[in-house]
Amino acid sequence: MAILLSTKANAMEAWRDALLELEPGLDIRLFPDAGDPAEIEAAVCWTQHDMGELRRYPNLGLIVSMGAGVDHLLRPPGPPPGVPVARLKDERLTSGMTEWVLLNVLRFHRQDLEYRAQQAARVWDELPAPETSARRVGFLGLGELGMAAAHACRLLGFPVMGWTRRARQVEGVETFHGEDGLAAMLGRSDILVCLLPLTPDTRGILNARTLAMLPRGAFLINAARGGHVAQPDLLEALDSGQIAAAALDVFEPEPLPADHPFWGHPRVLVWPHAASITIPRSAAPQVIENLRRLREGRELINLVDFSAGY
Amino acid sequence: MAILLSTKANAMEAWRDALLELEPGLDIRLFPDAGDPAEIEAAVCWTQHDMGELRRYPNLGLIVSMGAGVDHLLRPPGPPPGVPVARLKDERLTSGMTEWVLLNVLRFHRQDLEYRAQQAARVWDELPAPETSARRVGFLGLGELGMAAAHACRLLGFPVMGWTRRARQVEGVETFHGEDGLAAMLGRSDILVCLLPLTPDTRGILNARTLAMLPRGAFLINAARGGHVAQPDLLEALDSGQIAAAALDVFEPEPLPADHPFWGHPRVLVWPHAASITIPRSAAPQVIENLRRLREGRELINLVDFSAGY
Repeated sequence: MAILLSTKANAMEAWRDALLELEPGLDIRLFPDAGDPAEIEAAVCWTQHDMGELRRYPNLGLIVSMGAGVDHLLRPPGPPPGVPVARLKDERLTSGMTEWVLLNVLRFHRQDLEYRAQQAARVWDELPAPETSARRVGFLGLGELGMAAAHACRLLGFPVMGWTRRARQVEGVETFHGEDGLAAMLGRSDILVCLLPLTPDTRGILNARTLAMLPRGAFLINAARGGHVAQPDLLEALDSGQIAAAALDVFEPEPLPADHPFWGHPRVLVWPHAASITIPRSAAPQVIENLRRLREGRELINLVDFSAGY
Repeated sequence: MAILLSTKANAMEAWRDALLELEPGLDIRLFPDAGDPAEIEAAVCWTQHDMGELRRYPNLGLIVSMGAGVDHLLRPPGPPPGVPVARLKDERLTSGMTEWVLLNVLRFHRQDLEYRAQQAARVWDELPAPETSARRVGFLGLGELGMAAAHACRLLGFPVMGWTRRARQVEGVETFHGEDGLAAMLGRSDILVCLLPLTPDTRGILNARTLAMLPRGAFLINAARGGHVAQPDLLEALDSGQIAAAALDVFEPEPLPADHPFWGHPRVLVWPHAASITIPRSAAPQVIENLRRLREGRELINLVDFSAGY
């Protein structure tokens, strides 16, 4: 039996090597060279892979999606019915996201955009500094990534809030849920961080109506999915000053088209979906673990809950 | 008896209010309106105040310097002999410095300068990402500020090193000392953070010789004093690529002259000595505490050790 591996060309070999290091005898086929379709027992693939294509493999027992987000699996045609799908819960993916969120929270909190503008104008001027204890950071989503980033912000002294679908208690985090909770949290978020899963319920959650609920001059950080943001609404909010600045790692579509106004906007920081990257060596062990469980008929780990959408 | 307060004009009132809130009856004189010199029992002042001037007050029993650094007190003529000098050990000053160091460590680590350049060129390209566990951060100085910043970097997963004058053991920090230790630590510092006190021994410590000891393409973060850096040597190291980029909060002289090449250098981030700011409300309690101790003849706190130079 064999593993089908399908990811971006520049990551293919690193993934193969990381898997082989843990399980040297593994028969790994690099897509599109799948060989005999009946021999494929598991597919390890990323967003660029057509889920419909996976219907070619009659003995497929496991699909591993090579990241935390699963929205690409929810689009038609979706994975073959009855085949369990696991995603990655990668500590390195989480810590990388925490770094990226902290970088941008601190950049906005410490008025880095203003200081860069002052440098360009050769202006030496200390700006009045808001206290950390008065800079409220709201998190949309408290999954693995949101929890870790919220915790790090809390350790630095920021008052931290979190909004989730269902009511939750999290130590040190003021929690909100539901439609009323969303308005309440947005109204107090000086910095808003979006780390939600993209589902039909959360698509377009950041729009003219909700952006207007934020305190005037709030900052937006989006490392979830481009589909969470109504991009023209965000541009308007930036231009009106309702949003002071935004750090965006994700867009719709990606890559961000070369003529998109975000690129040249002085108050938008564009990242090429690189906030956090799955490192094969760090993520390979859980792929191997699931493969062993599959072969031994044991319960699989990190399975996607399609009813919840993540 | 009265307190003489002397600081930057825009901070004078905030300091007076913070002190009065804790000790409402306090007689606070705002420099230069000192009134009767014999009535001044304590002077709370910052770097712009001429230490020679303090010899005018015959009953001066305490000088409080409104920051962590004390190098301005070491320059001739120095404070009046026999008058104890306290500095501020302000938790908010420390946490503010930790924020600023983290912001710049993360900016360099996460290749923010490259991503900003890519944005300017409208390039969507994910860059190979070095792992946090392989990005070694070296701290020159492990005082209050250095320890706190090193600890925060360690929590994020960076391997952390520290260099001090005398040998020290610090949990989780690989320590170095002396001339040999300096070379050893510099040789491994992918990111070097200077938080040393400025003394005759540390003046000019970052020069052509020591910058050349760093791994090629290292990053420099200086939030200590401009006098630690031989500025022309740093410019050469930046232009040769030995130093990939520098975040500098301090210069010599300050303000940084408008024609200085740092201002327009694409790999230098200039800050106007604003990495960490003493917030009067946060620092006032220890000033009042020392004033009470002075009046009651008790031992003073946070005294400057002039033999050590900090």
